[in-house]
Amino acid sequence: MPSDPLSSLFDRALDADRRALARLFTLIENDDSALRHVMRLAHPSAGNAEVVGITGPPGAGKSTIVDRLVHIARKDGRSVGVLAVDPTSPFSGGSVLGDRIRMRDHYLDPEVFIRSVATRGAHGGLAAVCRAGVSLLDALGKDIILVETVGVGQTELDILGVADIVAVVLVPEAGDTVQAMKAGLLEIADIFVVNKADRDGAGQMASALRAMLSLDPRPSELKPHLLMTQAHLGEGISELYEETYLRLKDMRDSGRLAERRERQSIAEVTRLVTSSISAEVERAMSEERALKKTVAEVKSGDLDPYTAAERITTSLWRR
Amino acid sequence: MPSDPLSSLFDRALDADRRALARLFTLIENDDSALRHVMRLAHPSAGNAEVVGITGPPGAGKSTIVDRLVHIARKDGRSVGVLAVDPTSPFSGGSVLGDRIRMRDHYLDPEVFIRSVATRGAHGGLAAVCRAGVSLLDALGKDIILVETVGVGQTELDILGVADIVAVVLVPEAGDTVQAMKAGLLEIADIFVVNKADRDGAGQMASALRAMLSLDPRPSELKPHLLMTQAHLGEGISELYEETYLRLKDMRDSGRLAERRERQSIAEVTRLVTSSISAEVERAMSEERALKKTVAEVKSGDLDPYTAAERITTSLWRR
Repeated sequence: MPSDPLSSLFDRALDADRRALARLFTLIENDDSALRHVMRLAHPSAGNAEVVGITGPPGAGKSTIVDRLVHIARKDGRSVGVLAVDPTSPFSGGSVLGDRIRMRDHYLDPEVFIRSVATRGAHGGLAAVCRAGVSLLDALGKDIILVETVGVGQTELDILGVADIVAVVLVPEAGDTVQAMKAGLLEIADIFVVNKADRDGAGQMASALRAMLSLDPRPSELKPHLLMTQAHLGEGISELYEETYLRLKDMRDSGRLAERRERQSIAEVTRLVTSSISAEVERAMSEERALKKTVAEVKSGDLDPYTAAERITTSLWRR
Repeated sequence: MPSDPLSSLFDRALDADRRALARLFTLIENDDSALRHVMRLAHPSAGNAEVVGITGPPGAGKSTIVDRLVHIARKDGRSVGVLAVDPTSPFSGGSVLGDRIRMRDHYLDPEVFIRSVATRGAHGGLAAVCRAGVSLLDALGKDIILVETVGVGQTELDILGVADIVAVVLVPEAGDTVQAMKAGLLEIADIFVVNKADRDGAGQMASALRAMLSLDPRPSELKPHLLMTQAHLGEGISELYEETYLRLKDMRDSGRLAERRERQSIAEVTRLVTSSISAEVERAMSEERALKKTVAEVKSGDLDPYTAAERITTSLWRR
């Protein structure tokens, strides 16, 4: 029997106790040491789930697409976890209601777990919570984990660092394709989804995306594919599900999936090391005599922050 | 005569050469070493401007408020710099047009400089560019610098780390007051502006904000004040200008402004130290034998990222 409360919650979650799982999520959202503990508990059993990122601007229809994908995955006999992350909203209070509405269709299905992820923590906190959430659902045996996140800023790119494959959902209204290219979406998208394909401009957007993709010098198996959907009618979603499945299979067979996951793990290690070193930097700056002197010079305006930072870095790093 | 091109651009900007100033901004957006250089050049002459942050959700009317404030400041005989930052938009292409539209009214006024700030750089890059931009405009002698940024996420909070005073602009549609509180706006706001005060729900929002503020245990000079505006009609903007002026005066007289700026400088030093140490961490992880072994164990899945990070941190830090 595990002696600590977290391990015991983890074991209960393994036994399909939803409340224990929800409690674990609350803990990893709010407590950094709980997050680390859960990551360690989850690690040995994680690595089997397919992690699909779904991103795009607000109003593109991501939630509808995700809900439809959940239904198809369940028909296909696979268990599903959904993490819905909105880094542009600091309002975690709303998401609980959101979860309840979204869970309506799946409340009695023990093979579906849907969670909105929010945090008021520090830089990179949301991405860390998201990674931990994926590991947790993965370790609990979910076959597919859908990570839904709004927008295309830096935090979202970080969050997508957890996904095996990323679908970028666009709508004709979302702005032109040149902008999607500028935003770095070409680099992160494995699949482009033009949703609301019945609207004016959908065909034009698809043509523009195709034109852009034709300029992409990568071999075709690495290029994003393009799909048209009308998520509210369920149209094109089976194709999206199928496409995701096939691309992931191809990535697995070719070894690209393993490579991608390795890169993601290393990026995570780097991030963790940097974050604990940052904490040490802050401590040293407030406690050590020579560093405090430099800090005082900055405070008085005698020294600019850049020169001060160089001095402090030199004195801290492997002296 | 300065021998390097950057110093020479800086000197031309000091001589009110707008094109040189615009060029400096482009350089600090795109080149990290140029940013450092500009910060060093600007530091000795910076520290005299009043830096006012204006934030709030999209559509709250921030740009209109900023434009009105520019007019009032000019009537008041003060020179103005405006930095408009949208961290939720990765589309820097649009901002040039935005600048042109916004500059229309001030094109012939050498005492106004307006710039949209964008970057596709790394984490924290946008905040760094914003800080450098403020220092630059400060060093060039602008009396007031308005930093306008959308939303209330982490990046925005970082950007507001540069401001002497922060006005949070809300509209009745922007969601309820409880949400503003949850988002940490209570902590960063020095002034709450309920804009579009003629709309339904404005009075209700103001009452709710007042109720919230009455629970704030801080002394009244530290509590956010509440103003109602109708920026499109120019109503309430003189009051906002006045309020900003008076609060800053009070902060200056009481020493709180100096304290705030000290805290901001130290936070910047910490950020810079952390960022250069991160670069070193990445280098060490890819080059050093013992670290490469740990990295390999993570790649193979034998080691979880958290344990690996602890090992690497221990080996790098002041060994």
